[in-house]
Amino acid sequence: MDDHEGPMRRVLELARHGQWRTSPNPLTGAVVVRDGRVVGEGHLNERGDHAEAVALDRAARAGGAAGATLYTNLEPCCWSGVGKHTPPCAQRIIREGVRRVVIATADPHPKVDGAGARMLRGAGIEVVEGVLEEEAARLNAVHFKFHRTGIPFVTLKIAQSIDGRIATGGGDSRWISDRDARVMTHELRAAHDAIMVGVGTALADDPELTVRLTAPLRDRQPLPVIVDSTLRLPPGARLTAGERSPLIFTTDRHDRRARAALERAGARVAVAGGDGGGRVALDRALAALAGAGVTSVLVEGGAALHTELIRQRLFDKLVAVVAPVVIGAGTDAVGDLGTARLVDALRLERVSHRQINDQAIITGYRSLAATLGRAGSGPLPGAQRQEAGCSAVS
Amino acid sequence: MDDHEGPMRRVLELARHGQWRTSPNPLTGAVVVRDGRVVGEGHLNERGDHAEAVALDRAARAGGAAGATLYTNLEPCCWSGVGKHTPPCAQRIIREGVRRVVIATADPHPKVDGAGARMLRGAGIEVVEGVLEEEAARLNAVHFKFHRTGIPFVTLKIAQSIDGRIATGGGDSRWISDRDARVMTHELRAAHDAIMVGVGTALADDPELTVRLTAPLRDRQPLPVIVDSTLRLPPGARLTAGERSPLIFTTDRHDRRARAALERAGARVAVAGGDGGGRVALDRALAALAGAGVTSVLVEGGAALHTELIRQRLFDKLVAVVAPVVIGAGTDAVGDLGTARLVDALRLERVSHRQINDQAIITGYRSLAATLGRAGSGPLPGAQRQEAGCSAVS
Repeated sequence: MDDHEGPMRRVLELARHGQWRTSPNPLTGAVVVRDGRVVGEGHLNERGDHAEAVALDRAARAGGAAGATLYTNLEPCCWSGVGKHTPPCAQRIIREGVRRVVIATADPHPKVDGAGARMLRGAGIEVVEGVLEEEAARLNAVHFKFHRTGIPFVTLKIAQSIDGRIATGGGDSRWISDRDARVMTHELRAAHDAIMVGVGTALADDPELTVRLTAPLRDRQPLPVIVDSTLRLPPGARLTAGERSPLIFTTDRHDRRARAALERAGARVAVAGGDGGGRVALDRALAALAGAGVTSVLVEGGAALHTELIRQRLFDKLVAVVAPVVIGAGTDAVGDLGTARLVDALRLERVSHRQINDQAIITGYRSLAATLGRAGSGPLPGAQRQEAGCSAVS
Repeated sequence: MDDHEGPMRRVLELARHGQWRTSPNPLTGAVVVRDGRVVGEGHLNERGDHAEAVALDRAARAGGAAGATLYTNLEPCCWSGVGKHTPPCAQRIIREGVRRVVIATADPHPKVDGAGARMLRGAGIEVVEGVLEEEAARLNAVHFKFHRTGIPFVTLKIAQSIDGRIATGGGDSRWISDRDARVMTHELRAAHDAIMVGVGTALADDPELTVRLTAPLRDRQPLPVIVDSTLRLPPGARLTAGERSPLIFTTDRHDRRARAALERAGARVAVAGGDGGGRVALDRALAALAGAGVTSVLVEGGAALHTELIRQRLFDKLVAVVAPVVIGAGTDAVGDLGTARLVDALRLERVSHRQINDQAIITGYRSLAATLGRAGSGPLPGAQRQEAGCSAVS
């Protein structure tokens, strides 16, 4: 039996090179093996060339890919049209005479979703699927979440004390974490399409919500999003003065003059219903963001927003930066979730730990199956899905 | 210049072999180097033989220690008398003709505290002090805390959710951490002379507070201590039925009949004043424990006891077992500390991180200087210190 996992590990390694650079495109890598030798490698590059195309270009310079095996983590694309900048990879693979394609995961993109593999098989190419599938799906969890569920991938970032506080009783929260941890936060920002905060945090901290502390990523400025049920954000907030106009979700309880002033200051305002309690309906706000092409959202507080997103099971990943500080009674990182018994408590999956100086970084998923669209999380109202299918290109 | 750090590292490695076995004796190791070659090594053994004696015995079998250098982490002892089972090491070192003694730290034991080194120097032996001093002091932090401040070394162990809760709103706390983390807790228990809990925890959990989950340490059963200002502990609690009689600290608000019943059940009851608020004065309780020979106390909850020990700066080390669970409002691990500004918050020192399965173990010191008796923590009322000095043995 061929060792497909070895080359696929290399594919995943290549795919990771695109980190912070490819959104909204998924992270992809490709390796071409001919006669037991790697003759081409590639990943999605900054010009937008697909990994398979880059790898096949390299293979062409090394004698071509005829009879070769192409490894890729994501099913090759098979469509062209509006909004797509690259020619379809499946056709190119067929044209080059590749004998076998080994794929980690199907591409959940509604225009692919199995059609790429079908096209290859239709051309007589052997297709092997599911090699390192879970690892590959996790790598592109954002892509899976977005396309399979119609809402963005939501990461909660909490900078807290050991005892779970994000501010003192006097409201002091700057800084619980150190500068290196804040650099990591800015990297997280760059890796997401939008950053969301509650208006309380916006009023308390007057944040910019920009990528500043990590120079090479400053061109990756996410969309600032504020949840503000009555439009308390002042038009002069630093958020409205930033490079990207903020998007404010509010309810019909908002004041019209406040809205006009915010819009004059450059902000966009969207009414995302009420949730019964007069607050912004977060599921609808997230679906609206997905509709606007936002595939991932980093939520940076405050406690009320985090608590609601946890309670409503609307987040995918939690990143807790635990500083070795004990604050005692103050602002709790997480409020009431109605957890009566320990077995009902939210237990994170796929937990990983690392350290930044004396801070523990604890990362985990709420439910990887839900994030990858495999369980308990069908498309929400407002999400649009298209029929999968490829139009053969002449 | 001689490399003293290399041999001293070996000494510390040897000293660690005694872990869990030596209390109330400090961890010690010794290495004898003659003509650039190690001719003897030792650590405090289970018979109670001192590290220096063991190493010199070995050296004797390898040609003797005349002209050799002896490395030890703790200043050699120099006294004999009631309660001491071994002959003094300083005299033995002199007798063997050792030329030089390299010491990491002075021994804070009131009968040594510099006198051992003086005796060696008085005999014409070269004495080098302070090699890897801090590391060695930390290794014997319990010994330093106990002898320098007259109160035991206090470790707080908290098993909590990421958001800093130790139980749900319904009081459910079993189990937040997994079995492997509880094995670590039992190892911690074995490493302390006493385990302390508040009566609320004793009532809620009816714990045994014994070393059970780690078989080789089952002969190290610490003294169970309960803080119970009004003697609510029922005489039938599992604590009173254990191998070691529990010690209960109470106030003069206690009920005499309750006391009589507890004493009949085998418990010992001590009145440790009130703290003004009608609660047990924890500083006095700790000093009383020290007076009874308890050098270290592991505090396992509940939240009220932890909070008071943190607020009164009476603890030395915090061990937080952070399970990847989010509970939301419930029992907070730490209550009100009156922290207004972040700069006033307690920031742990010498933080270390490790993992047990998916749990993060965060360990840190409140103030290593205070623990080692170097700053801001003079002897408390009730602590007794003796004049340092050695009576030469004929």
